[in-house]
Amino acid sequence: MINVAIIGASGYTGVELTRILCNHPEIRLTAATSRQYAGKPLAEVFPNLRGKTELICENLGLDELCERADLFFTAVPHKTAMDIVPSLLRAGKKVIDLSADFRLRDVAVYEQWYQAHSSPELINEAVYGLPELYREQIKNARLVANPGCYPTSIILGLNPLLKQGVIDPSTIIADSKSGTSGAGRAASVGSLFCEVADGFRAYKVGGSHRHIPEIEQEINALGNCASKISFTPHLLPISRGILSTVYATPIKDFKLSELTALYEDVYRDEPFVRLLPAGSSPATQYVRGSNFCDISINHDLRTNRLIVLSAIDNVVKGAAGQAIQNMNLMLGLPEITSLEGAPFFP
Amino acid sequence: MINVAIIGASGYTGVELTRILCNHPEIRLTAATSRQYAGKPLAEVFPNLRGKTELICENLGLDELCERADLFFTAVPHKTAMDIVPSLLRAGKKVIDLSADFRLRDVAVYEQWYQAHSSPELINEAVYGLPELYREQIKNARLVANPGCYPTSIILGLNPLLKQGVIDPSTIIADSKSGTSGAGRAASVGSLFCEVADGFRAYKVGGSHRHIPEIEQEINALGNCASKISFTPHLLPISRGILSTVYATPIKDFKLSELTALYEDVYRDEPFVRLLPAGSSPATQYVRGSNFCDISINHDLRTNRLIVLSAIDNVVKGAAGQAIQNMNLMLGLPEITSLEGAPFFP
Amino acid sequence: MINVAIIGASGYTGVELTRILCNHPEIRLTAATSRQYAGKPLAEVFPNLRGKTELICENLGLDELCERADLFFTAVPHKTAMDIVPSLLRAGKKVIDLSADFRLRDVAVYEQWYQAHSSPELINEAVYGLPELYREQIKNARLVANPGCYPTSIILGLNPLLKQGVIDPSTIIADSKSGTSGAGRAASVGSLFCEVADGFRAYKVGGSHRHIPEIEQEINALGNCASKISFTPHLLPISRGILSTVYATPIKDFKLSELTALYEDVYRDEPFVRLLPAGSSPATQYVRGSNFCDISINHDLRTNRLIVLSAIDNVVKGAAGQAIQNMNLMLGLPEITSLEGAPFFP
Amino acid sequence: MINVAIIGASGYTGVELTRILCNHPEIRLTAATSRQYAGKPLAEVFPNLRGKTELICENLGLDELCERADLFFTAVPHKTAMDIVPSLLRAGKKVIDLSADFRLRDVAVYEQWYQAHSSPELINEAVYGLPELYREQIKNARLVANPGCYPTSIILGLNPLLKQGVIDPSTIIADSKSGTSGAGRAASVGSLFCEVADGFRAYKVGGSHRHIPEIEQEINALGNCASKISFTPHLLPISRGILSTVYATPIKDFKLSELTALYEDVYRDEPFVRLLPAGSSPATQYVRGSNFCDISINHDLRTNRLIVLSAIDNVVKGAAGQAIQNMNLMLGLPEITSLEGAPFFP
Repeated sequence: MINVAIIGASGYTGVELTRILCNHPEIRLTAATSRQYAGKPLAEVFPNLRGKTELICENLGLDELCERADLFFTAVPHKTAMDIVPSLLRAGKKVIDLSADFRLRDVAVYEQWYQAHSSPELINEAVYGLPELYREQIKNARLVANPGCYPTSIILGLNPLLKQGVIDPSTIIADSKSGTSGAGRAASVGSLFCEVADGFRAYKVGGSHRHIPEIEQEINALGNCASKISFTPHLLPISRGILSTVYATPIKDFKLSELTALYEDVYRDEPFVRLLPAGSSPATQYVRGSNFCDISINHDLRTNRLIVLSAIDNVVKGAAGQAIQNMNLMLGLPEITSLEGAPFFP
Repeated sequence: MINVAIIGASGYTGVELTRILCNHPEIRLTAATSRQYAGKPLAEVFPNLRGKTELICENLGLDELCERADLFFTAVPHKTAMDIVPSLLRAGKKVIDLSADFRLRDVAVYEQWYQAHSSPELINEAVYGLPELYREQIKNARLVANPGCYPTSIILGLNPLLKQGVIDPSTIIADSKSGTSGAGRAASVGSLFCEVADGFRAYKVGGSHRHIPEIEQEINALGNCASKISFTPHLLPISRGILSTVYATPIKDFKLSELTALYEDVYRDEPFVRLLPAGSSPATQYVRGSNFCDISINHDLRTNRLIVLSAIDNVVKGAAGQAIQNMNLMLGLPEITSLEGAPFFP
Repeated sequence: MINVAIIGASGYTGVELTRILCNHPEIRLTAATSRQYAGKPLAEVFPNLRGKTELICENLGLDELCERADLFFTAVPHKTAMDIVPSLLRAGKKVIDLSADFRLRDVAVYEQWYQAHSSPELINEAVYGLPELYREQIKNARLVANPGCYPTSIILGLNPLLKQGVIDPSTIIADSKSGTSGAGRAASVGSLFCEVADGFRAYKVGGSHRHIPEIEQEINALGNCASKISFTPHLLPISRGILSTVYATPIKDFKLSELTALYEDVYRDEPFVRLLPAGSSPATQYVRGSNFCDISINHDLRTNRLIVLSAIDNVVKGAAGQAIQNMNLMLGLPEITSLEGAPFFP
Repeated sequence: MINVAIIGASGYTGVELTRILCNHPEIRLTAATSRQYAGKPLAEVFPNLRGKTELICENLGLDELCERADLFFTAVPHKTAMDIVPSLLRAGKKVIDLSADFRLRDVAVYEQWYQAHSSPELINEAVYGLPELYREQIKNARLVANPGCYPTSIILGLNPLLKQGVIDPSTIIADSKSGTSGAGRAASVGSLFCEVADGFRAYKVGGSHRHIPEIEQEINALGNCASKISFTPHLLPISRGILSTVYATPIKDFKLSELTALYEDVYRDEPFVRLLPAGSSPATQYVRGSNFCDISINHDLRTNRLIVLSAIDNVVKGAAGQAIQNMNLMLGLPEITSLEGAPFFP
């Protein structure tokens, strides 16, 4: 059994990490930190966990933390993460960071979109934790930067097209829709039931969402280019799920069947990518609660545009599930351990 | 008082027409037809209408219908509409048709997307019932083709840009999301609560939705061009509301403030278009139950794309409300009569 | 035109008062106070109101307020209300208080369930604002205590049975379910979309909800008794609506048709009570957005229990709509003015 | 590996049985029947199952079925079940029937609430599949009648009180609220998203729901009495979950702490019953997707009524999960196998 701890356990990522890990056969969850709920059983903060964990939320210093576990999930806001992670690494721990602090390889880009970075030296070491792209590096990593939820859906959707140079990256428009859990568990008027329910809206329109540089970094690496993309996030009146509708213009002639074959080639051995047959479309309700990413590729012959649809559960493949997938890789465990559950429907 | 009848009253458009008309000071609703519910009070089919209408659903022939009213709403499926409308017109009635049968001015286009047209001679006479574009023609029309819900949101959003030649119409991508009432009230597994709730999906991906030729007709008329657009509809887990996120590339230099002024110019006197200030985004929950169309214009400076957001209540401005707006115009009544209600929130 | 102001306009009651009043033909809304949003247009706080009101949220002293209007809605928390209302009355204003401060006629009961009362002398003067019970007194009142949402649904449901002595009041069990708008617009984790959506729970179980003394006061007045009732509130994953399922044991023999006739007798002339025919059940979605209270009476012959079902929109008949009904009465206007709208469905 | 088949796999119980069984370490799912979808992959009918099962829906005769498996889940409507089950038993198979056909031990009661019974001889043999009451009998059963969803929640909630004679059974009132999946997957207007969403209603009010005799059978067995109960089902705008609020009057003096201890005694070793501490209330969102039944016991001292709250996921503990719990018992497997998953939240 390997000892694992969650730093910042009282958000939706924390409860989902615990939900999945409490049945993991090789893992013992030994600490869950939360300043706000210190002293309170985690199963009282999240009553779904009753009977599944005895963990008490604690407010632990780094020394205490290091005694408790060998691998850490840091589920804290950006900026807070970069203050904690270096000490954990110095103590010889493995870290999967769920914040944005170590995702961007160019510190200047990070500082433009976020703020000054206090540990730029770790940026080069950190591995971007998208197993479908960086599996081998993740296996050997000390520090994995778990991808953002929107980027996960968009990058997995475009990956084969970019690798093969099928599309012009500068034509990419990603229109993404996310469930409200993506907004976190902080009390705010904008996330109240009555503000969100039975409604739909866009936000951060016009190129201002912080996931943009992350998406561009991976797109440009895959496409060997330096393009900018358009990205519009929207807020869905559901708890879990992201659907990204991604448009791009091809620069080559092809048959749709060739693209289908290309996707099958790229994703054949991926345990968590499901390619949909022609005529089927991904839906968030078909990946709910699972680590799957469902993808379909479509060609609008009238306008010669490709439309990629990609659905994930933002709390699982977009956060906690992918983090555990990374953990399994880092620990040499079978990659799918504890992530085998089929999606919930209805 | 003017006598008005609804042909096909048992769908969501029918109940909404009745809801709005039952408080209209100049209108008497004199018949509501429904084969399925013939003999049943309309307020039993739709219990929200209890105490608001005494109408009984009837299965009436055309002669009987013509004795009952002077103006008709035909809220029946396409193809059925074209079989009824000519007789009504011959009997000297005014008609607002909510089907697609008289929206497309090119009969060949209609027949390509739908089926053979039995009354092509009426196509030229019919006025496309978007008052913001065709107000004067509507006032004098015998037959108004009430626009589709998606087209209403998209055309109102793009109208100023097209008129002024700001954008390249061939770059238009409309990513639209609609509430489930748009799927109608027919019993089907795909529209069951458990299939739709807590989920999100695209449908008719890749240029196959029948609203495409309607959108293109109006866009090309406004832009004096012959472009094709990309359009992807999605299904929202809400009852009412459409949000369209529309992308286009400008072909002129401009400041955002100039575009804002352009929109204000075009829509200054429109009673049902609300332009949002910079930084605000339309949301379906802010137009719910009203005839408003909320629009914002945004410029992504990183990619030099314009993003227009447009929200309507698909049952009101996208169907019944716009039909009543057209009726008011056709009858010489104040355009906003019975449509003054503020949107519901929460 | 009569000048009217809303004190505490930034909650869900405030926005609904404004929604209804902005189309009222005899009323001019002249002030809307909010400490939190002072200086901000009300239509920016609640974007559904864009184009319907030019009001700016203000933080006004009592003197300024009194210059603005002749009738006031106090939509503030209990305790705050009792500090404001006396001054308004002294200035000769009419007041409709939406808090609990003047609902309970026994100050000792008030102080047991709430806290010390600073204006007990006004308690006797205040009229409980349920027009179906106190219409004549309301017409002449200076101060109307607008009923709670749960009490409105339960009292209207039981009124005929109690008046006629049909049931044993000590057997009353009210199992009520409310939409989340009842919890208000304060930012709190418990009201977040992700905590409420796709879920259902009871709260304040076992006789602790503060609406209990209010319900008992009116039940005991109607039944001329001194009974205690069981009341369990529940939280529905909807924005608007209350359904109360009320159980009671009869103490007389009767036929169900006699009870039906009794209800018809009592409510025949009520503009906002709709009695449902046998076999129909009230549903919150059929009163949504309206001032209606839908009621059905049922008899379980197997257990000889009566089951009354009663549905309202908690924001309308349970708060803002009923307040405006009271205002109309106090001002000698037709009672239904501005409240004629049919419920929204779907 | 034991071969297991699902007869009637295309409903919500079928997809949930498959979801849970596809990860069961001792079970091989060898057939899934569906007349409607015969020839179609089950993962196409329910796309959440993609990649989790290769099963094709088949329309199989009994002989073919018997060759495929040793244990059968019959997830078909009542009446259909009683035509299939005898043949399966004659062929030496074990059967878990999810219909109502074998739940009622008194054939006369069955025939009063349903219709004539064609296999009354099996009624005595069938074991009511509530493991918390009949674990030992289930282990040895050939035929288990899987309980109804409402009865499961109500009986588990009342069991300790009845066993100890704490309450007067004739005072029981069960006010239950269920998610829409309980209405099944048949296309019907009443289950459409737009009819259910953002709404709430009661149905089968006044003692007419067919779960009543089932609840009474078990209550009377536990309480050694012959009482009738009041039961009112309601429809929640959620997919999964039942909350039952059950009222009863005690006939003994007691302290709440004694009742708490009683519940702990009864349920101490139950793997799927979670007792909530004082002050906590069950919520459907905390059992979602799991086999748990969460229970709290409350005492209203003002009216001396007990209020039991009981929450389950109607698709899991109310149907498929409990059926698999029964299967594990019948096969001598650890009872919780494949049912260990923690509930989903949010």
